[in-house]
Amino acid sequence: MDQSLNLALLQHACVEDPAKNLAVVTDMIRDAAGRGATLIVTQELFRSPYFCVTEDPAAFDLAESIPGATTQILGDLAKELGVSISASLFERRAAGLYHNTSVLIGPAGQITGKYRKMHIPDDPSYLEKYYFTPGDLGFASHPLTRTDGSALGGVGMLVCWDQWFPEAARLTAMQGADVLLYPTAIGWHAEDSASDHAAQLDAWQTVQRSHAITNGVFVAVPNRIGTEGVNTFWGHSFIADPMGRVLAQASADQQEILTAELDLSQVEQSRREWNLFFRDRRPDAYGGITQRWGH
Amino acid sequence: MDQSLNLALLQHACVEDPAKNLAVVTDMIRDAAGRGATLIVTQELFRSPYFCVTEDPAAFDLAESIPGATTQILGDLAKELGVSISASLFERRAAGLYHNTSVLIGPAGQITGKYRKMHIPDDPSYLEKYYFTPGDLGFASHPLTRTDGSALGGVGMLVCWDQWFPEAARLTAMQGADVLLYPTAIGWHAEDSASDHAAQLDAWQTVQRSHAITNGVFVAVPNRIGTEGVNTFWGHSFIADPMGRVLAQASADQQEILTAELDLSQVEQSRREWNLFFRDRRPDAYGGITQRWGH
Repeated sequence: MDQSLNLALLQHACVEDPAKNLAVVTDMIRDAAGRGATLIVTQELFRSPYFCVTEDPAAFDLAESIPGATTQILGDLAKELGVSISASLFERRAAGLYHNTSVLIGPAGQITGKYRKMHIPDDPSYLEKYYFTPGDLGFASHPLTRTDGSALGGVGMLVCWDQWFPEAARLTAMQGADVLLYPTAIGWHAEDSASDHAAQLDAWQTVQRSHAITNGVFVAVPNRIGTEGVNTFWGHSFIADPMGRVLAQASADQQEILTAELDLSQVEQSRREWNLFFRDRRPDAYGGITQRWGH
Repeated sequence: MDQSLNLALLQHACVEDPAKNLAVVTDMIRDAAGRGATLIVTQELFRSPYFCVTEDPAAFDLAESIPGATTQILGDLAKELGVSISASLFERRAAGLYHNTSVLIGPAGQITGKYRKMHIPDDPSYLEKYYFTPGDLGFASHPLTRTDGSALGGVGMLVCWDQWFPEAARLTAMQGADVLLYPTAIGWHAEDSASDHAAQLDAWQTVQRSHAITNGVFVAVPNRIGTEGVNTFWGHSFIADPMGRVLAQASADQQEILTAELDLSQVEQSRREWNLFFRDRRPDAYGGITQRWGH
């Protein structure tokens, strides 16, 4: 049975008007589907500029219910094109309760998976703790289906800051995910040096490639581009295989649909040949992971 | 207070006679101490060829008690030179019970830390499950001391295959380690292709650099060189800082003392600036890590 998954990541800049960003993304989705993509992944919070650069109560107006307007539009589009879409949204769950949420929409147009970002950063110009309550849905693998309804592996939807936590990658892989998605909004700060910028970009890619290797999975990371205030989002969206090899990588500053054909049978193959790590884990000795610190 | 640690990793080939390998290592330790090293780390199982290439009951003769002959010699040397030594040994704990064990010897000559390799591989030409019972001492940070007895950070002694398990790095860092040591015997198999060899070496370094980044610690990896049967040990011993930057790296095939001066205050600095991950871990959601698999 053919296990190939045609993946497309959407890398683009965002403007102030959410309708215009959605129009860019729907155009890119049509384009990607026309090129054969069967799973299309947006960057983090693609409907708006990265509002977390400041703490502004008015920005909560950008949040929306799930299901809601955007999932309806993307669901119709997924059904029309016969593709799966993973979209990163600002979720309004209740008055005063908001999440940074990803949804998976299947080729029948329905929502088939939902994930709320578990790890929330707070850094100068990334003030997410003001906006997002940490997720409470845990880590999951969501089954992918072809247009004929047959199963094609599982996808884990993690988000941005989650990428720095090996626990998140591990737990998602242990749920059966073959591909980890990390929609991202990360960039360089205007005040950092060029050598800092290089080290940051390299650390970012290194850690996510490492998740691919230690778990024997594919990793796919769509990132934003464009300068918004002090942040210049660094693009470099990429897709890596279970040996951590970069299969495709985007530019730092161009709008791109980054594609790769993933053979999901490589997950099992890699875990037989090199990534034999699940055989040898020591869960009996890992209890300390559920603690805050060693003492 | 100066927090600098002068680290030296010993990379060399091994011959059949354990006495000769010990002589090479004691010479290298004297050399490293003369160049100012205060913590000197051997490669994995430095006293012998990598015997795990076959399953041979006679190889158990290579095992020794701890404390024992080697720790006595290295202890005397550490005291004479005023250095700390981390040595990787084949431990005979009892008849029929053997471990792959690291010891830390302080500048007063005493054993101040002991670690038994927790993750044991079994791959063609790396048949370690035949020889080594998985460790039962857990993950620890061992305090380093200067010759005047004052404290200088903590060191985690992990071994080779442990390097592929993010849980091991995380738990050791959570015990307070500033530096993770991974004495290693890893190499290329004669039957693999050149592109496989490149991917393997890159995956190996990527994963360990990732542990440095995700935990905000230094990582130091001494590896063996030389061809022993089907295995050509690939050297490339290296030292990385908490941003995963490689501070020093050895060749593929030369005997080398690899040195770097580590400023351990960078551990806290990095965790304030970039590696803010311990703040945001979700131990409440990590319970699944103590399971074998997700179902």
